[in-house]
Order: sequence, then structure tokens, then C-alpha cells
Amino acid sequence: MTTFDYDLFVIGGGSGGVRSARLAAAMGKKVAIAEEFRFGGTCVIRGCVPKKLYVYASQFPEYFEDAAGFGWQVGEARFDWPALVAAKEKEITRLEGLYRKGLENSGATILATRAELTGPNRVRLTATGEEVTAERILIAVGGHPTPHTDLPGHELCISSNEAFDLPALPKSILISGGGYIAVEFANIFHGLGVETTLIYRGKQILSRFDHDMRQGVQSAMIAKGIRIVCEDIITSVAEGEGGSRVVRTKAGETLTVDQVMLALGRVPNTGGLGLKAAGVAVNERGAILVDDYSRTNVPGIFALGDVTDRVQLTPVAIHEAMCFIETEFRGKPVSPDHDLIATAVFSQPEIGTVGLSEDEAAKTFGDLEIYRAEFRPMKATLSGRQEKTIMKLVVNAADRKVLGAHILGHEAGEMAQLLGISLKAGVTKDDFDRTMAVHPTAAEELVTMYQPSYRVRNGQRV
Amino acid sequence: MTTFDYDLFVIGGGSGGVRSARLAAAMGKKVAIAEEFRFGGTCVIRGCVPKKLYVYASQFPEYFEDAAGFGWQVGEARFDWPALVAAKEKEITRLEGLYRKGLENSGATILATRAELTGPNRVRLTATGEEVTAERILIAVGGHPTPHTDLPGHELCISSNEAFDLPALPKSILISGGGYIAVEFANIFHGLGVETTLIYRGKQILSRFDHDMRQGVQSAMIAKGIRIVCEDIITSVAEGEGGSRVVRTKAGETLTVDQVMLALGRVPNTGGLGLKAAGVAVNERGAILVDDYSRTNVPGIFALGDVTDRVQLTPVAIHEAMCFIETEFRGKPVSPDHDLIATAVFSQPEIGTVGLSEDEAAKTFGDLEIYRAEFRPMKATLSGRQEKTIMKLVVNAADRKVLGAHILGHEAGEMAQLLGISLKAGVTKDDFDRTMAVHPTAAEELVTMYQPSYRVRNGQRV
Repeated sequence: MTTFDYDLFVIGGGSGGVRSARLAAAMGKKVAIAEEFRFGGTCVIRGCVPKKLYVYASQFPEYFEDAAGFGWQVGEARFDWPALVAAKEKEITRLEGLYRKGLENSGATILATRAELTGPNRVRLTATGEEVTAERILIAVGGHPTPHTDLPGHELCISSNEAFDLPALPKSILISGGGYIAVEFANIFHGLGVETTLIYRGKQILSRFDHDMRQGVQSAMIAKGIRIVCEDIITSVAEGEGGSRVVRTKAGETLTVDQVMLALGRVPNTGGLGLKAAGVAVNERGAILVDDYSRTNVPGIFALGDVTDRVQLTPVAIHEAMCFIETEFRGKPVSPDHDLIATAVFSQPEIGTVGLSEDEAAKTFGDLEIYRAEFRPMKATLSGRQEKTIMKLVVNAADRKVLGAHILGHEAGEMAQLLGISLKAGVTKDDFDRTMAVHPTAAEELVTMYQPSYRVRNGQRV
Repeated sequence: MTTFDYDLFVIGGGSGGVRSARLAAAMGKKVAIAEEFRFGGTCVIRGCVPKKLYVYASQFPEYFEDAAGFGWQVGEARFDWPALVAAKEKEITRLEGLYRKGLENSGATILATRAELTGPNRVRLTATGEEVTAERILIAVGGHPTPHTDLPGHELCISSNEAFDLPALPKSILISGGGYIAVEFANIFHGLGVETTLIYRGKQILSRFDHDMRQGVQSAMIAKGIRIVCEDIITSVAEGEGGSRVVRTKAGETLTVDQVMLALGRVPNTGGLGLKAAGVAVNERGAILVDDYSRTNVPGIFALGDVTDRVQLTPVAIHEAMCFIETEFRGKPVSPDHDLIATAVFSQPEIGTVGLSEDEAAKTFGDLEIYRAEFRPMKATLSGRQEKTIMKLVVNAADRKVLGAHILGHEAGEMAQLLGISLKAGVTKDDFDRTMAVHPTAAEELVTMYQPSYRVRNGQRV
């Protein structure tokens, strides 16, 4: 019988890798986890966490303005970007410490090194050159922003990675992309006082979301002063005077800005991993191919999280990790459930969504009831802020099942989380109708829309 | 066959009365609605709506403080109480107008008068002395704060009615009561800079809520500087120097404050309604007795909302109104469903709750799983604010059904609304577990508590 140095060797200290290592080690397995940079992965170091902290920071000017309608006179406010960066850094260092401590307490061996596969059960630690063996190897190395190397001047651009740690807050920024990262950063920078332009090749931002959400957030962003240029792309970036960037677009526009940020998607971190040496198959985008149990084509090698490019979300990576542990170490095969994942876009206004958009639902279901409310949030009545909350339910007329729930407005992410429970449990619109309102809340609209706003029959709005 | 002046005569222009009148009139029924003061009732004029607007106003100082941790330096803020009162007044006047317009559009006759019963199908309009007849009479006149006339000096005190329109913001206030109105106002006044004391006869505020919520909100209020005196009551109030109030308590304390607010419960508005003349029965608290269909003991006379003292909440009155219309005018008998009503306390921090508290559940269910998380909200990591969010699920171990969900923290009311849907649909803890987290949110804690914090077996925590 072959013996290995480790029962499990995890490459990558992000959400999926850390959870896997911690759970296996806590079961008494011999576990090592290799991380070359910092523990916590994209989420903690340059994703969800710093992003949300910056969203909070960027919301304060609206609070200061809103206060006037409620009787408050507020003195002038000044913003100190380096102070925010330092505060963020302190917090993610604290979180990183918690991740590390959790691993230590579980008994996992922490290796501060890059690790490369050299064979099916074999890994080389690049810091020392040492080779170790493991019965199972888990690849959870995540992804990174597409560098868009085809773009002349791409090296003059930043990605979300750099955006968090810019030495100074730019006076103006051009963000290229129409996905959630582009949209969230456009709102963050605008909120912090940066002249912000977003450029996107499509007709409207956030292509995969319900059309009311897309329309609503795009209108709101434009109304607050973000310039959104659709159906155009950057064709070149060059250095301008005083460190500025001169950008040319396909439609012929020339923009001069302090920074250009590319947010054009993310790609798996599969370079230099030794996948070829180990014979691990990847798809055309470089993502590791896995089956329903996060198994690669090579026995003993597994992959999960963003490197597999299934659903690029922290909770999904963690869920995949828990399923991996159940399957491989507890003898209970469980495949990750990627159905009905609620998500949030921390734009301003925020989007919270779960289930099918109206258009997606119309492709599968012949008779839909659409319940839709658009209203001014209560706080806005006194603040005078021009903003709308939109709430929408997509219901299958045949069995009254709620197929999708979509919210644009304050705390939409929190609401999506809880609507996610209801949709996952398969509730019907009758369950919504039976629920007493909580007054005054925004969410009560969701339980007081008794009549459909319209129906969609065979794909046609009627 | 007898003919009546009206098919339906509604006494009281609050939420329940207006909804009833509007729905019946929209069906083509001949409807009158009498209101002596302003349309909108307690909710719009001196309850939910102005309360929540004042809650918003009182939250701004925390925003100004929190901003510093995110890199903002904010100039001094000053608060103008009359400006808030005026803004509130403008908004409730607008809402009142919407209520009135809805009635007008439905075709109901609006009578600006008090109305008294003079017999089973007969009402006298006190403004003109005219008597009219109606096939059905609906009493929806609401309630008012207990004046506590036994208290020496009660006439020197204010209630929530006056609190909204005080000519000047007091420097100090003593609030008597431990229910949600007392607690909400204590937080409002404290947030606006008033030195606030709350006095309550019980051991801990908010007696009917889950003990973790009670403990959590009381601790948080004390930590932010609200003085809470439990197990004591006011025994007298007298005028002091400069318009102050000198209060003596049973425990022997003497307090001098600018205002004393009594929030000791609410009583039905059944005085001077002619109930005796019509033979309508009331209970010992003066509430009109009704059956499951909001019928009084007198045929043709109905009552709903706060005057019946079932559940004193706006959405409940509206729900009772809709059931009344279905039953009496659409031939579909429906009795109001008072089970599993989600509610919020707009304290700071806020409470959102639905279903059974741990203690209530333990009386009925022999084996409970309690899932409980207490954590610092993400925003507080940078603001440095010392605050805790508490989330709690009470689960019946036998069938995994979620019996109660309780939240203390930001947007707890919004969350309770949506948890209300899940609990009404009878979801299980397994449905929660199957739901993917939305990260980073606070609500994700509710779907990631995989192991019970403790169990309660036969009423004993184990």
C-alpha cells in the first residue's frame, strides 16, 4: 500500500481551499495548504470584503445630503482616501489572521509557498523546491481579472486588484465593462467624488439580470451623474500629460482621465500550476474541468471555486468545499447544488435577485404573471432624493410558483438572501399573499401585490 | 323591503375604514365614510409613518460619527426640530390627500364629521345632527394612548400623540413604559440629542419578545447612553421651575425633566360612539367584541382594527377590512388570519421577529433546536461602533419546522417581512440549509448556522 506525505494537499488559501483544509484537518486528516500570497483569497483580499467596505465609504455623501430634509445642517465633509485604504488594510489583515488561525487550530500545515503539480499525487513547493505527495490534491487557486492584453496600452490600465490600493484617489476614471464589478466600482468612485465614466459594448449594463433591474440601475446611475457609454469599446490607451490617460474608443471618442480600469471578466489562475505535467484537462478558457463531485479527469486531483469557472461566488466555493469533504472524507457523496443562487450587486441602488428573470422565465413557461411595484422609498420623501425602489415577482401562472424575485433598492442584497430561502423551498405566490405585511417597510410591497401588473403568454406581454 | 341611505356606512377614516370604504364603493356600493379629524388614522397621522420618519432623523448622528472610520471628516452638525416637524407635517398631509383621493375616486361619500350610532342601522352625524341609515355599519375608529388618569399630574404628561408636535425639542425626557412605543421614542429622542430615561415596571423591556431580543436591545440602549430604570413606576408628576416636570417614583427617586411621556398601552376609542344605544357589546377594556368575521353582536354592525383590540397593527386592520369585504359584499366568507404575523420594533438597533420566541415554543414543543449567532456588523468593523447583530432561529427538532425567527440589528424589519413568507409557508431548517449564502450580507448568517447553538428539551436548556 502506497503511503503519502498528506491525506489532502490544498493549493490555494481562498474561501474554498481554506474551508476544505480546515474541515479535513479537523477530522484528523493530515492536511497541508499552500498559499503564496495572503490567506482569504479574492473575497477577503481584493473582492467582496474590501468592495463592500468601499461601498459603505462611498454612501456617506448621500447621508450627509439626505440629513437636510430631516432638519440637520451638516458642516462641510472632506474625504481622505489613504485613510480609507489604511482602514481597509487593517480589517483584511484581521480577517486574514482569522483564516490562518482557523487553519492552525484545525491542525492543518500551512505552507507559505506556491505549489505546482508534478504528477497525479505529487506537488512541488516552489519556495524550497521540495516535492511532497498526497492521496488527494485539491486545486482552489481562484481567478484574476482579464488583463486584456490585446488592447494597446492595457499596461497603463488598472483592474479591480489595483483599484483598492491606488496611492491617490483619481479625479476622473473610465471603467470598461458592464458586469457587476464594473458597475459596483463606478458607483464607489462616483460616491467618493470621482468623475466617473463607464463604457460597455452592450446595449445596457448587467446583461444577465432582469430587464427592469438593468434599466432601473442604469437610469439611477445616470441620474446621479455617472456617464454611461453603451455600444462602444476602448480601442487604445496612451499616456497623456501629467500622468493622465488618453483613451480612444471605437465610436471615435477621445477621453482624458486619471485612471482607466478594465473590468472585463475574470479568468482562472491555471497558468504555472503544472496541470500539463499532471495531465489535468482544462476548457478553452483555461478553467479546470470537473464532474459533479469536483473531480478532475485525473484520479486524486480535485478542483473547486473560481478556477473551475462554474459560478464565481464565495458561498459557492465554500459550498463546493463542504460537498467535497462530505464526498471524499465522510463517505457521503454530495454534489454541489448550483440551482437558485441568490445574488446581490452592490451598486447604488443595490440589486438583489434570485431565480429567473422575466425573459428567462418566458423561454420555459408559457403563462407568467408579473407582479411589479415601483415606488419612492419612505426615507426619500423627506430627503427629497429622486430615487425609485423596484420590486418584481415572476410567477408561473400554472402552479403559482414564484420563479424569480428581483429587487432594486436599499438593502436589496439582504432581501435577496431571505427570498432565496422561500424560492428554494418552492413557495407559491399564495404563500406571499397569505403573509401579513410589516409596516412601514419596503419589503411589504412584496406581500401586498395582489393583482398581476401584466402577464406574459408564449413570450408576449399581454 | 326596507331601503337604506347607504349600503355601507364606515365610521373612522384610518387604515381599516378607508380600505373597507374604498373597496365597497369601487364595487358600486353606496358608501359613506365619516371622519372627524384627518384621514389616515393613527398610522399616518400619529403612528407608524411619522414615527419612522423620526427614526430616520434620529439615525443621522450615528452616520456622521461612523463616517470617520471610512476616511470622512465631517463638520459640526446642528439639528432643527421645528424643521423636522414641518417636514413630517408636509408628508403626512400628502399621504392624507392620497387617502382622500382614493376614496373620492372610488365613489365613496366623504363626511367630515363625527358619527354616533343611534340604533342598529342608524347613525347620527354630529356636525349637522342629521340621521342616516345604512344596511351595514362598520366601526373602525381605532384607539388612543391610555391617559393614566390615576397618576397625580398625568395632565402634565405627553403621549405619543403630542410627542410628534412638541413646540421645542426637550433637553431631557422621561418615558414611562416598556412596550414598543416607549422603546422607539426613547431611541428617537436619544438620537436627536435628548437626555433620555425610560422607566418600566417589569424586569426588562419588551416583555412579549424573545429574551435574546429583549436583552440585546436593552443592553444596546444602555450602552449608547439611554438610562433604563426597571422595576419602578412613576407615582407623581408636578410642575417644577421653568416649566420642568418633577417626577417621583415608587422606589423613591426624584427626577427633574423637561417632558414626561406616558406610553402605557392604548385603549379603544369607544367612548361617545352610541354603542349602548345600538346595543353593541364591548369587553372590560372597552373594545368592541367581534366574531371571526368582524361581526358585533348586533346584526348589521361590524368592527375591525384597533377598536376591536385583536392585534393593533395597520396591516392587520387592512387585512380585516379585505376579509370583511370578501365576506359581506362578495359572498366569500373569509375570516382574518392572525397567525404568524411578522412585526418590527423600530428601536435602534431594530428588532424584526416572526413566530414563537424560544420561551413560548418551549411551552408547546418538547425538543427545540436553537440556532443563534451574535456578530459585529461589517460596517462596524471600520466605524468602530460597538454594536452586535443577533440572529436566532427556533426550530422544532421533531419535524425541523422553523417556529420562530428573531433578528436584532440593521434592517431587521425588512428581514422579518421576508422571513414571514418562509414561516407562513411552513419551511424547515433544511430549506434554510439548502439556500446559498449571499455574501457579504448580514442575513447570510441565517442560512449558514448548520449546527444548533443549544437545544431546549422539556423546557430545559441542554
